[in-house]
Amino acid sequence: MTQITIGIDIGGTNTVMGFVDREGNCLAEISVPTREHAEIDPYIQNISRLLKAELAAHADWQLMGIGIGAPNANYHRGTIEEAPNLAWKGTVHFCDKLAEFFPNIAIAITNDANAAAIGEMIYGAAKDLRDFVVITLGTGLGSGIVVDGNLVYGHDGFAGEVGHTTVFLDGRQCGCGKRGCLETYASATGMVRTMTEILCNSQKPSDLRAIPNNKLTSLDIETALKKGDELAQECFDYTGKILGLKLADVVAHTSPSHIFIFGGVAKAGDVLLNPVRRYMEEYLLPIFKNKITIQQSGLQNVNAAVLGASALAWKELEK
Amino acid sequence: MTQITIGIDIGGTNTVMGFVDREGNCLAEISVPTREHAEIDPYIQNISRLLKAELAAHADWQLMGIGIGAPNANYHRGTIEEAPNLAWKGTVHFCDKLAEFFPNIAIAITNDANAAAIGEMIYGAAKDLRDFVVITLGTGLGSGIVVDGNLVYGHDGFAGEVGHTTVFLDGRQCGCGKRGCLETYASATGMVRTMTEILCNSQKPSDLRAIPNNKLTSLDIETALKKGDELAQECFDYTGKILGLKLADVVAHTSPSHIFIFGGVAKAGDVLLNPVRRYMEEYLLPIFKNKITIQQSGLQNVNAAVLGASALAWKELEK
Repeated sequence: MTQITIGIDIGGTNTVMGFVDREGNCLAEISVPTREHAEIDPYIQNISRLLKAELAAHADWQLMGIGIGAPNANYHRGTIEEAPNLAWKGTVHFCDKLAEFFPNIAIAITNDANAAAIGEMIYGAAKDLRDFVVITLGTGLGSGIVVDGNLVYGHDGFAGEVGHTTVFLDGRQCGCGKRGCLETYASATGMVRTMTEILCNSQKPSDLRAIPNNKLTSLDIETALKKGDELAQECFDYTGKILGLKLADVVAHTSPSHIFIFGGVAKAGDVLLNPVRRYMEEYLLPIFKNKITIQQSGLQNVNAAVLGASALAWKELEK
Repeated sequence: MTQITIGIDIGGTNTVMGFVDREGNCLAEISVPTREHAEIDPYIQNISRLLKAELAAHADWQLMGIGIGAPNANYHRGTIEEAPNLAWKGTVHFCDKLAEFFPNIAIAITNDANAAAIGEMIYGAAKDLRDFVVITLGTGLGSGIVVDGNLVYGHDGFAGEVGHTTVFLDGRQCGCGKRGCLETYASATGMVRTMTEILCNSQKPSDLRAIPNNKLTSLDIETALKKGDELAQECFDYTGKILGLKLADVVAHTSPSHIFIFGGVAKAGDVLLNPVRRYMEEYLLPIFKNKITIQQSGLQNVNAAVLGASALAWKELEK
């Protein structure tokens, strides 16, 4: 028998479900549109039916647990609460509902960035680490903080929101309703805002001036940088400065040995990570200097969301 | 037999040692000058001799462990490292040295703010809490962060330095060598700097104008506030704003249910804590709003440093 867990990644558009062994090999994957299910109960019925059919087709698999990564997920309560991008409003008791179809199976849920951190711990570059942080740089900035081998959930299950710490009082408007949040500077959308600001303030030439503001992407900025665009360089430097500044705060709080950077923007590699490293060191207390490794995630080129969710299930089984 | 632990609070001037029972009653206390011991070995010999004499005088005491609170103490290594205010330079292997005199006794060391957090957990207002933070407002700002019932030490033993997170890029010069650290705003000395700035910027009358800058204390500001001084009010409000801002970052990282404020400045009570509460709420993500309690420490009027150190020993025994 091959022991497996199921990892379920719930996104606003699609739900992807993977059957994953203890080494992180995804043996099968199923995708269903999330948006077509306006009600939660038919959705749970549908995904359960699909999962059971796949399990029935593989008599040599032994299901050990199910992990779910979802926006606004609460680990302690097993719920999804007031998720803006999902159709199901209010508080959805997701784990309880799924357990009706999978009795006696360990089921746990957390948000996607926390799941990514657990994925790093179970399958990725953090296997032997006790204290580390994962930062996911996509449209926004997600994070999972691991202290002494366990993910930090906090008293309410919502800890690890580094993206919504404040960089500047009265700074950029954030989607969360606050101002000056880190993710308005360090994320794909934050970089576009920074680039636009730099283009306004400078008179230097740049190919990026030809791209309308609402079409500009972080990939355009990366491409320009690689062609030697000075203003694109300035944008990466500033992004690294602000991210480095706030990572220094994370270090002052929890003192991780490693920080893993993950997601679309992180694929730029050292052109982003080098300024992050340089500025973080500048803003660290002397006792923390020169001992923290910042590197790309070990799960950069796989379906890390599904793997992270399945890792959450393995992590629960260790308890 | 009464089970006791010894709590040793090492300050630059004095070392205070208390014999404490499980309920937090300090049954006896000994004080020795720290400064008179330029070398570590005679110091350890001297305090060990005094401790053993006291223990010998109380045949009904059973020594369970020894906890030490000291500046720049490293929990993982049992050391004091490069402490600026102590005569012993370099890395002092404090626990190992003390263990030569107390073999087979559990001995642990951490910094004073971490010890205060453990004191709060063992004897104080955090007995039943799993996730909380203690902030000590004295000359500087110390902190201890507790996640899921355990103090956060980090990979290197130095976590919990909230006082040296950055408020403003290129802000006030800090004693640590950085700029804009929280403790240059939220501490007794930070409040004096803020008050001085307010007096410069305003033309309103204030009794505080009569006090020379190098004589002004946070207590003077509190006294003026209570007499209705508008500028002193502004100083408390600004201090609360900056502390509230950075506590919101702590919440975003670790989501504690309670934040305990401790130390000389905290004795001002709600005139300080109310602005801290108001501004922290303003800077919190919606999911964190209206669920965190900010209150004065439960150990405000006792020798919390000695109790905290002794609590560290009880905490070790639980492991």
